[in-house]
Amino acid sequence: MGLIKTSPQRRKTAYHSRLRAMEYRVSAPEVLREPLVVPEKLLMGPGPSNAHPRVLEAMSRPILGHLHPETLKIMDDIKAGMRYLFQTNNAATFCLSASGHGGMEATLCNLLEDGDVVLIGHTGHWGDRAADMASRYGADVHMVRATSGSSLTLAEIRKALETHRPSVLFLTQGDSSTGVQQGLEGVGALCRANDCLLIVDTVASLGGTPFHMDRWEIDACYTGSQKVLGAPPGITPISFNHRAVERYQRRQTKVKVYYWDMFLVGDYWGCFGRPRIYHHTISSTLLYGLREAIAIACEESIPSLISRHQDCAKRLYDGLLAMGFELYAQERDRLATVTTIRVPTGVDWLQVSQHAMKTFLVEISGGLGPTAGQVFRIGLMGQNATSERVDRVLQVFRESVKAVKPDFVFRKSTSKM
Amino acid sequence: MGLIKTSPQRRKTAYHSRLRAMEYRVSAPEVLREPLVVPEKLLMGPGPSNAHPRVLEAMSRPILGHLHPETLKIMDDIKAGMRYLFQTNNAATFCLSASGHGGMEATLCNLLEDGDVVLIGHTGHWGDRAADMASRYGADVHMVRATSGSSLTLAEIRKALETHRPSVLFLTQGDSSTGVQQGLEGVGALCRANDCLLIVDTVASLGGTPFHMDRWEIDACYTGSQKVLGAPPGITPISFNHRAVERYQRRQTKVKVYYWDMFLVGDYWGCFGRPRIYHHTISSTLLYGLREAIAIACEESIPSLISRHQDCAKRLYDGLLAMGFELYAQERDRLATVTTIRVPTGVDWLQVSQHAMKTFLVEISGGLGPTAGQVFRIGLMGQNATSERVDRVLQVFRESVKAVKPDFVFRKSTSKM
Repeated sequence: MGLIKTSPQRRKTAYHSRLRAMEYRVSAPEVLREPLVVPEKLLMGPGPSNAHPRVLEAMSRPILGHLHPETLKIMDDIKAGMRYLFQTNNAATFCLSASGHGGMEATLCNLLEDGDVVLIGHTGHWGDRAADMASRYGADVHMVRATSGSSLTLAEIRKALETHRPSVLFLTQGDSSTGVQQGLEGVGALCRANDCLLIVDTVASLGGTPFHMDRWEIDACYTGSQKVLGAPPGITPISFNHRAVERYQRRQTKVKVYYWDMFLVGDYWGCFGRPRIYHHTISSTLLYGLREAIAIACEESIPSLISRHQDCAKRLYDGLLAMGFELYAQERDRLATVTTIRVPTGVDWLQVSQHAMKTFLVEISGGLGPTAGQVFRIGLMGQNATSERVDRVLQVFRESVKAVKPDFVFRKSTSKM
Repeated sequence: MGLIKTSPQRRKTAYHSRLRAMEYRVSAPEVLREPLVVPEKLLMGPGPSNAHPRVLEAMSRPILGHLHPETLKIMDDIKAGMRYLFQTNNAATFCLSASGHGGMEATLCNLLEDGDVVLIGHTGHWGDRAADMASRYGADVHMVRATSGSSLTLAEIRKALETHRPSVLFLTQGDSSTGVQQGLEGVGALCRANDCLLIVDTVASLGGTPFHMDRWEIDACYTGSQKVLGAPPGITPISFNHRAVERYQRRQTKVKVYYWDMFLVGDYWGCFGRPRIYHHTISSTLLYGLREAIAIACEESIPSLISRHQDCAKRLYDGLLAMGFELYAQERDRLATVTTIRVPTGVDWLQVSQHAMKTFLVEISGGLGPTAGQVFRIGLMGQNATSERVDRVLQVFRESVKAVKPDFVFRKSTSKM
């Protein structure tokens, strides 16, 4: 350490070093001497998607402190970009330092207190997850279930609101487990008429399908960084409107989780016009990646981003149907970003998925929750929503099914693929 | 998107594009057209510290899926490395996808239920924070306070345990707000004798001072990634021993926070011998950085890592005292990683800190919580714990104090610095 030591000191240090070495009962693992291995894969599952090279480059920039002016500036840029992507003017638009699940928990625990009634619209796995979380927070949880592969109609939602009289309705715009897209127009007005707040999960849908937080009168929403945005996972954009903020202000009890507390995190993000306060040490690295990803999305613009995803989804559906596969989600309810394909009788989905990965380094996923074992899931998100990648994943899917089940009968018309 | 469109379709698309464009009430912010700016700074505050170039390089690797075998392998490597750094054989050693606060909340909410008595050892800001969190989870919170600038004695801890009969004792090994190090030897045995679990926060201390989870009979602990390890912030190593796991298993109620639930996250990390299950989408990027940082620490070995930090701290204390400054923490309780310096009368700490940053791009921090306005804080962590950087920060500190208060009287003996 550059300290000049006299001989007696050196002897003493050597003695202490031996003593200290004996104190260590757990050895350093040999495995960490091997280099880090990260293969380059084509991520055509329901997320994460491949990040743009600009995003990856940004993430190798030096670490900054959590209250440095440059960090606060990047946070402000992200807030502005997310207001555009959510289509909202909400002051309380910021990010949680957590995965998308953090968004789900933060909306629920900020807006619910013990005994509050919450209604969960169930279109797949995420409804189950939200119900689990809300019940842990002490809410009285009710569920309104859509038919398998379908979304809820406005009439079904109205009836459930009138039956259960919830203070909060939770919906998932794009359920990545079923590939079902929930319509949102008109739901906000229904909620206001029933003195209910509307929370919407846009993790898998934002950027791939229209979303208008303010116009649709949505009170709280969140998205995933690693889906259409193609940013690294681990940071979650979230937004609360004035009705949600007022509900928070009327709470009788503190929000149970310090880490999710809207006012504490929001003050760190400078959302409420008060001085920025320290709440937690944010990951500057994830901020760099997210800012870059949002900048790329803003450069492209929402209309182009959405058309691109919708066009690619159409190309994928057509390709799959032409090969003879059946889609899981009803046509009118199909989510552009995640396509669910029924596993044909006699086909082992896991072998197909493994073949695609092993042979082509292409990710094609299986089902999740209610669709486990029943569907394949192909994601088209961000950088991966191009006609070239649609064609690539169709080809890999076809080859993998053929490899696993050589006698599988494809429709003749598509034998050229 | 490469789709060939007939003229009527193109016209229709153009019409819809115009319509869609009109629907967007919030515009894309101009500020995102400017490039991302990340200056290179010397981070000599209480964390984050500067990351090693190998860590930064790792973070620009491609994104992997959260259940890919390569990702699971990296997670296993991290578990092995953290068992070495915590000096534990605990199966339940894993990471949370959150900042260090997540560790605090996860230990408390996994081990506490409504009405449980918790005793918080208060040596600074982190005791207040833990008390806030525990009370939100419904615990009956008691505090035992150390004298300012000191740690708690074993006698004080014994007396508080016997008075309050807590089921959980929470201590901070290195309180970064006061620069105080809490002694831990003997506390575990006291806790066992009183049927109490011992949680220790090692966020600011691990790697800079000895820590022996198993030998010291600590039941739960966590650390920060961005301190001595010099990994990116946003991912938090945590460990629970068999007593903590048994306490979890005897719970009458579910852990309130899904995201912190030991068994759900632990199963994702493969800690309990059950199949790996999906819990959340982990940030592969943060895993790359953390694995690399842990590998670097293992290569150096714990004894060397600790001597380096202790030697540098000694050099810093000597330099500061020689200049005439007074240290805040008592000599026997000084934390090697964060040094607290009393702000001399008539010196504006904020101006000094701002001068250091503006003129030298060197971070020197002010106080936090109970020490706000009273101290400067200088951190020596990971890559920054070298004699060269100690000398650099001493020089910058001296120059900044002189610039802000030209008539400040430095001790003569150090005028050469």
